[in-house]
Amino acid sequence: MAPASAAKADTSETASYLAGDIEPFYGVRQGGILTPVQRHSYFAAFDLETAKRDDVITMLRSWTAACAALTRGEPAPSPAGYATEDSADTLGLGPSRLTVTFGFGAGLFVKDGKDRYGLGAAQPEALIDLPRFPGDQLIEARSGGDLSVQACADDPQIAFHAIRRLAALGWGTARLRWAQTGYLPDTKPGETPRNLLGFKDGTSNPGGEAALAEFVFVGDDGPAWMRGGSYVVARRILVALEHWDRLPANIQEQTVGRHRASGAPLGKTNEFDAVDLAATDRDGNPAVPLNSHVRLANAGSNDGARILRRPYSYNDGVGYTAERWPPWRQSVEYDAGLFFVCYQRDPREGFMKIFSKLAKFDRLNQFTTHTGGGLFACPGGAAPGEYIGEKLFDT
Amino acid sequence: MAPASAAKADTSETASYLAGDIEPFYGVRQGGILTPVQRHSYFAAFDLETAKRDDVITMLRSWTAACAALTRGEPAPSPAGYATEDSADTLGLGPSRLTVTFGFGAGLFVKDGKDRYGLGAAQPEALIDLPRFPGDQLIEARSGGDLSVQACADDPQIAFHAIRRLAALGWGTARLRWAQTGYLPDTKPGETPRNLLGFKDGTSNPGGEAALAEFVFVGDDGPAWMRGGSYVVARRILVALEHWDRLPANIQEQTVGRHRASGAPLGKTNEFDAVDLAATDRDGNPAVPLNSHVRLANAGSNDGARILRRPYSYNDGVGYTAERWPPWRQSVEYDAGLFFVCYQRDPREGFMKIFSKLAKFDRLNQFTTHTGGGLFACPGGAAPGEYIGEKLFDT
Repeated sequence: MAPASAAKADTSETASYLAGDIEPFYGVRQGGILTPVQRHSYFAAFDLETAKRDDVITMLRSWTAACAALTRGEPAPSPAGYATEDSADTLGLGPSRLTVTFGFGAGLFVKDGKDRYGLGAAQPEALIDLPRFPGDQLIEARSGGDLSVQACADDPQIAFHAIRRLAALGWGTARLRWAQTGYLPDTKPGETPRNLLGFKDGTSNPGGEAALAEFVFVGDDGPAWMRGGSYVVARRILVALEHWDRLPANIQEQTVGRHRASGAPLGKTNEFDAVDLAATDRDGNPAVPLNSHVRLANAGSNDGARILRRPYSYNDGVGYTAERWPPWRQSVEYDAGLFFVCYQRDPREGFMKIFSKLAKFDRLNQFTTHTGGGLFACPGGAAPGEYIGEKLFDT
Repeated sequence: MAPASAAKADTSETASYLAGDIEPFYGVRQGGILTPVQRHSYFAAFDLETAKRDDVITMLRSWTAACAALTRGEPAPSPAGYATEDSADTLGLGPSRLTVTFGFGAGLFVKDGKDRYGLGAAQPEALIDLPRFPGDQLIEARSGGDLSVQACADDPQIAFHAIRRLAALGWGTARLRWAQTGYLPDTKPGETPRNLLGFKDGTSNPGGEAALAEFVFVGDDGPAWMRGGSYVVARRILVALEHWDRLPANIQEQTVGRHRASGAPLGKTNEFDAVDLAATDRDGNPAVPLNSHVRLANAGSNDGARILRRPYSYNDGVGYTAERWPPWRQSVEYDAGLFFVCYQRDPREGFMKIFSKLAKFDRLNQFTTHTGGGLFACPGGAAPGEYIGEKLFDT
């Protein structure tokens, strides 16, 4: 009933948090891409239900203001006339390194053949419709969307809170389409987290400004509003953990192409040793098997293509799906696996190139099923006073 | 392929963890009941698919040995002839205060009229079939089970790992029926965590040995194998957060019966102030409304009945369920809420008594739907050398 005084009460604790708990919201690039990975993620896709361009702008303005506050550990401001103040589920928790990363789906530009907001001409060529890859089992209700919003934080309640607040602010303009939680284990600082397969995940990401400019962020080649932006591909990947857990470690390692304990490529010693595609074992066979995940995903197998991976594990309990191979039991299996998130300068040169090969040949495919996801254009970050994506609407 | 050497490698880091990260597995009472609440939970229910009593015993033996190791941060031993060593997803993470709490459902004793394992005569009277309460929408596939296993840890990967390992060890004997993840925010030590409603949850739990003996743990009144044990009721409670978030704080407070920020009962100042059912406001109305959650759940409204609550929040993304009230939008809503877990000496005197009243009158019911859960008899803890539930099988 009294947003102003509630805001005051809620912010009084902010000062006691370390600056390291706050990730900047404003900047040339959006947070949540290069940000050291947080422990929890809530990825939400929205469909726009308004016909008015101004409604979208108003919502993006309110979302920007909300995120600027939430990332500082402050309550999101309520719009004029809104009945209630911020919810209290995160009272006293602090910013928890919250980042919120926004993306625009193809539906923002043209949907069902209709240019709803006068943005059709601004759709980047790189914002394609991803083809159906071999093995894809994408569930419509878990895929696509006009907008993507990923909240990442070290506390799951903080991440979910941000989306709850944005969804409330977007009432009547945007409607939640799908959402996916994700988490990472509490790995020691500087170590690469392990996924549910038991392997370190995210070892060979591009780093350094030259590689980031080449592989991750849009430069002068893209539309002006995408400068400093990136394209995100999300995929919800069910992993048949029951089967995986029954494999001896050496079979798992042949499948992935890395040593399980160290994370080193097969035949190497250290996690960050380069994958040597030419190396052979004593018998003259490739040290990294031809159909192993790491070999097929490697830049050397894909004309140099690279992507920035930022994956989370997901765990939605159990599902009731088909069996993989006999002998197997009835229809219950873990609904858990990998919520794969990757960033790239151009999805045609990144995810599409790499995954086209993986979808066909990766030995890991017998344990994985892609059940949802999407492709979104994440604009460059907003400067203070600007709303997220403002340059798109100003073109 | 070499469990022994893998075990050796995996345990080498154990010593570097603080003793405080290890919760004891063996003891008069099972862990995970009085244990200071961990940040993550994975609750699994299993159905037994063997006809042989010895298979159940063999599995419980292997589960006991596995939990004794896992709670120390060591890999679970593999049974003879099992093809693979422990999975590697928790390598380097430490024990993370893991507890594993076992419960026996009515189906272990008699199922479909059949006493499968010769235990029918040992079924405690307190292990009843819970009635259908007003408003219950329990989904069969999310309810019941012959056995319950709840893993709690400060790391979600550690909790899930324990269940994956137990499920693998139980292969052919027990089959996963349903599972539910849960989490709590990273609340400051000593503070009561807030649930997704934004209210502190778990404030007025029984404490002290006298109250624990009266309300939580079975004494001489139960069968000998239940001494030191307790009955757990789990309920998966969907909360209509979209509606809740639109309420002004004072309406939320009238619904719950507590102040949102402090957690104090309405009309009081401090979280741990007793709920005063006789207190009135200036107009002579009850300070704690007649249909508020806290009033109806209070011991004073239920012939002194009390339970030990150990709730987690859950977040399974979105669901596609019916609307609550107009005006409301299409069919997507958060599939999130409360995974309510409570312990009591006798469910007929605990959950049943309290929830019979809540289910009828609680104003909070318009925001909640119970969609799954179960009742299980958690035996007393195992002594070293004993397997969990051994006293039941020895009777």
